[in-house]
Amino acid sequence: MVRLRGFQKLASTEEALQTLLNSLKFERLKTVKVPLPVALNRVLAKDIVAEEPLPRFDRSAVDGYAVKASDTLGASQFKPKTIKLTTADRLMEGEAKEVWTGSPLPEGADAVIMLENVKRLNNTVEVWTVVTPGENVSKMGEDVAKGETAVKAGTRMKPHHLGLIASLGVAEVNVFEKPKVAILATGNELVEVGQKPGKGQIFEANRLVLASLCRELGAEPLDLGIAKDNVEEISAKIRLGLEKADMVLTTGGTSVGAPDMVPAAVNSIGKPGVIVHGVAMRPAMPTALAVVDNKPIIILSGNPVAAIFGFEVFARPLILKMLGLAYEPRPVVTAKLTRRVSTALGRKTFVRVRVFKRDGEFFAEPISARGSGIISTMVKANGYVVVPENREGLEESETVQVYLFDTLKVDGENV
Amino acid sequence: MVRLRGFQKLASTEEALQTLLNSLKFERLKTVKVPLPVALNRVLAKDIVAEEPLPRFDRSAVDGYAVKASDTLGASQFKPKTIKLTTADRLMEGEAKEVWTGSPLPEGADAVIMLENVKRLNNTVEVWTVVTPGENVSKMGEDVAKGETAVKAGTRMKPHHLGLIASLGVAEVNVFEKPKVAILATGNELVEVGQKPGKGQIFEANRLVLASLCRELGAEPLDLGIAKDNVEEISAKIRLGLEKADMVLTTGGTSVGAPDMVPAAVNSIGKPGVIVHGVAMRPAMPTALAVVDNKPIIILSGNPVAAIFGFEVFARPLILKMLGLAYEPRPVVTAKLTRRVSTALGRKTFVRVRVFKRDGEFFAEPISARGSGIISTMVKANGYVVVPENREGLEESETVQVYLFDTLKVDGENV
Repeated sequence: MVRLRGFQKLASTEEALQTLLNSLKFERLKTVKVPLPVALNRVLAKDIVAEEPLPRFDRSAVDGYAVKASDTLGASQFKPKTIKLTTADRLMEGEAKEVWTGSPLPEGADAVIMLENVKRLNNTVEVWTVVTPGENVSKMGEDVAKGETAVKAGTRMKPHHLGLIASLGVAEVNVFEKPKVAILATGNELVEVGQKPGKGQIFEANRLVLASLCRELGAEPLDLGIAKDNVEEISAKIRLGLEKADMVLTTGGTSVGAPDMVPAAVNSIGKPGVIVHGVAMRPAMPTALAVVDNKPIIILSGNPVAAIFGFEVFARPLILKMLGLAYEPRPVVTAKLTRRVSTALGRKTFVRVRVFKRDGEFFAEPISARGSGIISTMVKANGYVVVPENREGLEESETVQVYLFDTLKVDGENV
Repeated sequence: MVRLRGFQKLASTEEALQTLLNSLKFERLKTVKVPLPVALNRVLAKDIVAEEPLPRFDRSAVDGYAVKASDTLGASQFKPKTIKLTTADRLMEGEAKEVWTGSPLPEGADAVIMLENVKRLNNTVEVWTVVTPGENVSKMGEDVAKGETAVKAGTRMKPHHLGLIASLGVAEVNVFEKPKVAILATGNELVEVGQKPGKGQIFEANRLVLASLCRELGAEPLDLGIAKDNVEEISAKIRLGLEKADMVLTTGGTSVGAPDMVPAAVNSIGKPGVIVHGVAMRPAMPTALAVVDNKPIIILSGNPVAAIFGFEVFARPLILKMLGLAYEPRPVVTAKLTRRVSTALGRKTFVRVRVFKRDGEFFAEPISARGSGIISTMVKANGYVVVPENREGLEESETVQVYLFDTLKVDGENV
């Protein structure tokens, strides 16, 4: 007899994401050539192949004397061998040349004796050890051979990638353009931060959070502003977003109440429209997923924490996929739960926790929150634990995997 | 009889860092007010205290009907209670008002009945459940109370911090200025990336790597260019760096060979000059630490990998300290070593490893490298393991902590 006004059926997070992926034909992002210094964290679009070997010539790996290894045969502390010093670029038999770390080896030399193993006299050195051919030499191409792929397309470039590319003399690289993500907040109750709120109004904070999450992933947020709860206004802004961006995110208006106009607005724009509405997760249950013009629209809850977890589960993998990255998991730490947590069966639950270290062991303390609107819980936490749908909670002292969304501060820990 | 030209005594990494810290009087960085959207990853300089409670009024936490809880007493599915609907901002006894998630509660209401638990008729609702005062209500100030500190000074701001601050209506925040780090490369053999190298010349890549590492930490790199192996030129550039920046990094010219002019140049500039030369670590043994004008100068090796680890051990903690952050450890993963590693007793050794997951378990594969000049090993690796001074290596299958400097890619892993 109960008239169900809630969601009739909830998709699992996996079903929901897969449904969305199946409804999209991914096109590769355009590529753009950028100078190396601004390529940090960008995704390489084209293999970097070494046109020259690295190093480009045999180099000394130490400070010392370049020699022909055969000239040191039989040398020892008891019976040093004397070798003549030269400054020429080419060694003759019985000659040595002073070299520093990184110096090119003179022609004819095949090894370097370390400073510590010789006594320098005026025009000669007394050699106390035998060296073998190649000893203390960085061979041409030993770091990267000519024609070898140094950094593969699809790599998100960290400082050491840029270093290797620069070492090859490459000054510009092809990277994927940043995926553009248009972000719209909806709701009559919203007012811009910095303005004066009227009665019943709240500050709109979700666009900033979502834009920041996009930036962290290397996407470029576009701001569609705030729309009133009005199907025409919402449709117009989403249409603009579809025109300008690769993906649209909206917040607000996704539960089953009367001002829930975003799904209606999306369906009015094009096909297939909303393909998932309601996900078996907590928070972010009312998330809806849509596709129009082969572009994904992720319709997030207006509750700030629900919007964050909806982004985490749907927008994050989509953005990474657009960038051509298989998946970049957040850093994970294994910890012991400090107390029991109850969750609802049939919902994948994201429990915010604070991870800390005590006596060399990691612990995860669940952060209590009654509602998904409590954004201060995100600030008290530094990670989350996922409780699967088939469990009703986690036990005290249970070992859990914590996905970190903030720095794990461990005082006094240093390397 | 051996004439020691190497380092007479090596400081441990801890001694070396502590010597440097003891020689510096840390002054707080200046603060600057920035708009919230550009504050991502900046360090908050002043507590954010809530001037208004969050939420600023009692709000409905669900879609449903605001009521006086007392009016629902005795209601059940078998004996529903009928309550009159109103649209007024103030509830009288026996009245209910439709509300959506986030709506302000009308005056006089103290609870919300979820949509699922009523039957709506024309001007009334049939109520099937009892609600208690406060049920389904987000109380004023339950997220952040008026006067409460929402985000503490010294926090590096992540998306959720910005979200909480925006929710409080704060549009601008005080952050610490970025510490400025001047970076100089030295060496006659160096040529700029993009130029044509002459015989025996190599591309200068260290400045870019160090600048990128600075950016990742939220510091601002200043480029001092390349100096020839010439004490006057090096001194002049370091002097400029000391004038413009909070810290100076140099690379090259730090081992004990003849072109080792950076320590000499630094000592010619001011007191106390070089206070540590040679650290019991591998790579980066020839690192030197200096102080002039109460500013740190970190004299790094010219070998790219040694420069990176010298930065990791000395520049990284210094930059974080300047930013007022206790310490931000890199993400750590516990893994099993795939094979034995030999290291030198008396040296803290940084072993590059590639972490991967197999059958749910993490493994760390040591990446072989003969020299610290092999930057391609950094690209093959995604983390490092620290072998302490008192060990000669690590055993196969030993459990190790890996510090990650790149993404840990785990295919198909998703939440």
